[in-house]
Amino acid sequence: MAGNSFGKIFKLSTFGESHGVAIGGIIDGCPSGLKLNLEAIQNELDRRKPGQSKIVTQRKEPDIVEFYSGVFEGVTTGTPIGFVIKNTNQKSKDYSHIKDVYRPSHADYTYDKKYGVRDYRGGGRSSARETACRVVAGAIAKQLIHKVEIRAFTSSVGDIFVEQPYQNLDLNAIENNAIRCPDEAIAKKMISKIEAIKKEGDTIGGTITCVIKNVPAGLGEPVFDKLHAELGKAMLSINAVKGFEYGSGFCGSRMKGSAHNDKFNKDGSTQTNLSGGVQGGISNGMDIYFRVAFKPVATTLQKQETINSKGETVQMQGKGRHDPCVVPRAVPIVEAMAALVLADYFLLDKITRL
Amino acid sequence: MAGNSFGKIFKLSTFGESHGVAIGGIIDGCPSGLKLNLEAIQNELDRRKPGQSKIVTQRKEPDIVEFYSGVFEGVTTGTPIGFVIKNTNQKSKDYSHIKDVYRPSHADYTYDKKYGVRDYRGGGRSSARETACRVVAGAIAKQLIHKVEIRAFTSSVGDIFVEQPYQNLDLNAIENNAIRCPDEAIAKKMISKIEAIKKEGDTIGGTITCVIKNVPAGLGEPVFDKLHAELGKAMLSINAVKGFEYGSGFCGSRMKGSAHNDKFNKDGSTQTNLSGGVQGGISNGMDIYFRVAFKPVATTLQKQETINSKGETVQMQGKGRHDPCVVPRAVPIVEAMAALVLADYFLLDKITRL
Amino acid sequence: MAGNSFGKIFKLSTFGESHGVAIGGIIDGCPSGLKLNLEAIQNELDRRKPGQSKIVTQRKEPDIVEFYSGVFEGVTTGTPIGFVIKNTNQKSKDYSHIKDVYRPSHADYTYDKKYGVRDYRGGGRSSARETACRVVAGAIAKQLIHKVEIRAFTSSVGDIFVEQPYQNLDLNAIENNAIRCPDEAIAKKMISKIEAIKKEGDTIGGTITCVIKNVPAGLGEPVFDKLHAELGKAMLSINAVKGFEYGSGFCGSRMKGSAHNDKFNKDGSTQTNLSGGVQGGISNGMDIYFRVAFKPVATTLQKQETINSKGETVQMQGKGRHDPCVVPRAVPIVEAMAALVLADYFLLDKITRL
Amino acid sequence: MAGNSFGKIFKLSTFGESHGVAIGGIIDGCPSGLKLNLEAIQNELDRRKPGQSKIVTQRKEPDIVEFYSGVFEGVTTGTPIGFVIKNTNQKSKDYSHIKDVYRPSHADYTYDKKYGVRDYRGGGRSSARETACRVVAGAIAKQLIHKVEIRAFTSSVGDIFVEQPYQNLDLNAIENNAIRCPDEAIAKKMISKIEAIKKEGDTIGGTITCVIKNVPAGLGEPVFDKLHAELGKAMLSINAVKGFEYGSGFCGSRMKGSAHNDKFNKDGSTQTNLSGGVQGGISNGMDIYFRVAFKPVATTLQKQETINSKGETVQMQGKGRHDPCVVPRAVPIVEAMAALVLADYFLLDKITRL
Repeated sequence: MAGNSFGKIFKLSTFGESHGVAIGGIIDGCPSGLKLNLEAIQNELDRRKPGQSKIVTQRKEPDIVEFYSGVFEGVTTGTPIGFVIKNTNQKSKDYSHIKDVYRPSHADYTYDKKYGVRDYRGGGRSSARETACRVVAGAIAKQLIHKVEIRAFTSSVGDIFVEQPYQNLDLNAIENNAIRCPDEAIAKKMISKIEAIKKEGDTIGGTITCVIKNVPAGLGEPVFDKLHAELGKAMLSINAVKGFEYGSGFCGSRMKGSAHNDKFNKDGSTQTNLSGGVQGGISNGMDIYFRVAFKPVATTLQKQETINSKGETVQMQGKGRHDPCVVPRAVPIVEAMAALVLADYFLLDKITRL
Repeated sequence: MAGNSFGKIFKLSTFGESHGVAIGGIIDGCPSGLKLNLEAIQNELDRRKPGQSKIVTQRKEPDIVEFYSGVFEGVTTGTPIGFVIKNTNQKSKDYSHIKDVYRPSHADYTYDKKYGVRDYRGGGRSSARETACRVVAGAIAKQLIHKVEIRAFTSSVGDIFVEQPYQNLDLNAIENNAIRCPDEAIAKKMISKIEAIKKEGDTIGGTITCVIKNVPAGLGEPVFDKLHAELGKAMLSINAVKGFEYGSGFCGSRMKGSAHNDKFNKDGSTQTNLSGGVQGGISNGMDIYFRVAFKPVATTLQKQETINSKGETVQMQGKGRHDPCVVPRAVPIVEAMAALVLADYFLLDKITRL
Repeated sequence: MAGNSFGKIFKLSTFGESHGVAIGGIIDGCPSGLKLNLEAIQNELDRRKPGQSKIVTQRKEPDIVEFYSGVFEGVTTGTPIGFVIKNTNQKSKDYSHIKDVYRPSHADYTYDKKYGVRDYRGGGRSSARETACRVVAGAIAKQLIHKVEIRAFTSSVGDIFVEQPYQNLDLNAIENNAIRCPDEAIAKKMISKIEAIKKEGDTIGGTITCVIKNVPAGLGEPVFDKLHAELGKAMLSINAVKGFEYGSGFCGSRMKGSAHNDKFNKDGSTQTNLSGGVQGGISNGMDIYFRVAFKPVATTLQKQETINSKGETVQMQGKGRHDPCVVPRAVPIVEAMAALVLADYFLLDKITRL
Repeated sequence: MAGNSFGKIFKLSTFGESHGVAIGGIIDGCPSGLKLNLEAIQNELDRRKPGQSKIVTQRKEPDIVEFYSGVFEGVTTGTPIGFVIKNTNQKSKDYSHIKDVYRPSHADYTYDKKYGVRDYRGGGRSSARETACRVVAGAIAKQLIHKVEIRAFTSSVGDIFVEQPYQNLDLNAIENNAIRCPDEAIAKKMISKIEAIKKEGDTIGGTITCVIKNVPAGLGEPVFDKLHAELGKAMLSINAVKGFEYGSGFCGSRMKGSAHNDKFNKDGSTQTNLSGGVQGGISNGMDIYFRVAFKPVATTLQKQETINSKGETVQMQGKGRHDPCVVPRAVPIVEAMAALVLADYFLLDKITRL
């Protein structure tokens, strides 16, 4: 009800503020008998963690996940998997200057309006730190549906776009650069762009494209819980996301039906894939692909005028260590949320037919 | 679980195939004491129904909603509101030719893969006829949150776009034309476009923009159930939708933080509204606005080659009476889904603070 | 949320007041491919319906169920099964005398306190008529888990008890008499008792015992949703139920561990079954059995003093046609609720292990 | 879905095995602005903890709860409350002898059947240690509904019963003795009984009665989620519980309606309270009271013959430190579960009427 859980069967519930004792969560509904690769989970966390390259925030947070339950002798037992990531480097003092200040385009104002009270340290619950828990659960989901391949990459930073269709890219090259873009030439331009933006004390938005291969036909629910609707919600729930499109997306709205329809091959595959691997809310066995838009990070290091909780005008300047562009660190988060959705529908599929 | 329910507190569950006896639903969680305007509900249904203008399908379905429970002497009793819309004009024969045929970019193939069996008549459960139930529930939701104003309109058909910002448009003029576009000059072009497309036996996509005014600050949940994430899921669950963006949307991903941040006025309102009325997943009191992309209707009246369930190539040609463009009839559906989301968060708000 | 749905995967949602247009429901989550025996469903409804014998209410309600969706060519399609039972014999006039009156030990007073408004005709939503929808869904659940045998019977009426353990009874004899007790000698005494009570214009309570055979080991969830806890809730949700015990029940609380423990046979079965077929909330493959206590029907035909909504003392006398003892008609309801619980856990079992 | 969560709005999710690193949970949906008394929470845990008296297990577990989130400057923030209780005194070696052994009337066999794997140390997830998390959440629930008074006490041990109605007892005297029985003379007999049983290496069952005062009329949901049904499920989900009855309970099934009906006073209160404070599933403002039956603890210190996972007969003898009677330590658990149910319905009440 209060929006801190995700999934129907494979269900993640999270807790934690950025500057409390710890963040963590419970994964309930993971089937028993799954041999967990704990190192792979930590690797995913490391892909998200601060300080991993020059173009992300220079905070140092080790982000070590500890499992408290649900795993016995390396195998899931079917009982809830409780896990915790300690907050080791909070530097709460960095935030005392914003105790009563509403930062523009942050959640400070809306949290106060909603709850009447607020843990103002570092954004509290609204901090993107919360997404570390999603990455933990997503890493387990990936292991559950290990035949499915989920690959996200940076497809634009500001006005610099990957122009090629994803089919032309080597998705194994995504991790070769700090921006996580498999088009090496474009990646260099993106990185330069972010470095320039960072020097200005400014920030920039971008998009992430995600491609999911080897999903069998038949996953998804027909009406309100269409596969792409759940993927859309999953992505839109990530901090800073402003838009979601799958398959032909917004471009598809400009097309004619005669051009948009995906003709069948005899084996049920299709000659084109403007449907994006989903028809009527259910996977058709083709690649699922979608694109996610991220706004520029709201915390800039430039001086800004804003208001405090008394409605007074105050000057503020971002301190602390913030990302100039959220996109490279968001790549594993997009993958994690996609994995959570697919793991859930993979389990739902087991109860669909007699 | 099976995806036929929507909402947490104000909850709609629906049933029904396009060519069964009836479609209908249950609205559970509507507070007691709401005086229902039944005529207003039927009016919303009439905005969605076939045959209302020359640019939509010419099927004649009266779509009369009957209430079976939950309303006593014109007032909601707090018990579930059961309702039914009879299917009076099914013409099931129109569909016998597609019994074993998988129509391109429809849900025929995926339903078969998912369920193993399928009510092939007119799309069965995958038919957009199902959305009539959403309109009924949305109309009640609108009455529950009557201070909130929800206005959707057609913002593009193919390449014909409304260029002006919504603030310059007279949203009271939306219903003045068959395409439901408040820019009369653009509306005419859109209608001509659809008429031309229809003559070709083809179809065309489009977008709908929705503006929601008078939402108080503080609605929404912080992490997975962000207000815009739920709106996004709601929209993506509508048949033929391929994309969703709110506030600055995909354009926002090209901007710098210094330009994107919405500066506060002293009263907590903002000077710009690139946030689209939502910050950190919670409403901030500004207009909420978003845009929804619809693909072209998959059923064209042109000849197409496709396959049947045995994997044989077959010729097919759309018969029956189909929409050349789904957008004008989807306007009330977008509004209905938005109303369902907001009614739910309006009720959730009552349990947020001590 | 509002308490009109039951089940996690195999989910029943119901609507309807006793004197509205109709009652009905939606069964969502029934797997596709189940060939439905519609006659068997109607038979279960007939076991519950009024007027079936001299010891139940003499109201005549045909209680014909109509299916609107989810079944195609006799087979479930995996989409929601919508059904309706029309209210044909409401005689609303019978209830005008209680419009403002709070009947003792009914739900009149509490509904008014909860909702502020109330459909006073015949109890409205609080009427046991609502249970007809449970019987429909339970009958489908029985067909889904057809290998499981669910047998409920009247084990006491007032002070007249079946003394023998259920293992000594012929459970195929349950339907041989109007009271649904397989011990023919006791059944006769029970019927005489009810006839005497009826003459007095009074009512009497009783208990129902339910035995469930052929449940495989391993069904149930470990902590909050223990199999017996869900069975308990299911039974306690039936009108007039005051208590639930399974296995050794309240008697077990008087025993020593050395006497209470069920010793294993080598095949995992147990020599005794004080556990009642459930250990740690999970079935162990032995018979599940439990006992449900029903209070006497609150509506007697004797004069009573009570109050109205203004707090004034008023005289009232039950009119209408009421059951002198609820137990014989509750037998199929107990079975239906048990079937709903087991069908749900049967489906949950499919997602427990990798 | 997997049964490790309880509640609709005020929702507890728990994790943890008895001999893992820690147990803990997340409370989601607690309103913001509640000033928490942390000492009172620890006090409730201390009432449950081992080693508190001579008649309970002599294990020493401090059971210190640590809060990780959701509380800021002593006040709830409306975000999830994450908490952890470390397992400090596991003595896993005590359990190595039962690695492959199925203890009679424990959950060993059923867990193996359900999951295929099992954390055999100390019962793992099936251990009553899990209930410590319920006590934490229940203690917070009590503070949320602080006007409601929830008092549970031991009403029987074996054949020794409290004979007086609860109205005659001083409920403030419950904590005066180790068995938690407010009838001091009966308490002494109970304690002597348990001491004798303990000497035999045996165990004994008992019952707990719970009285809830100051619940306003109108709490509860009408059909499947009746207030007493949810209380029943809550109690039946506690380890070792075999039965639940409220108000007149099983005795009520022997009564006539003329004797059972609770006559109204002019203010809406009733002269008797056989209804147990609930009518039609909704509270009527009178005391709610119910009785819960606990079986004898399955682990005795006597020699027993049983089987192992290969179906071989083996000898076993309970080692470790076990309770001879579960009832005294279960008193705070019963209260905690009652508090969780009532807190949830208290919040649900806020969304019932317009």
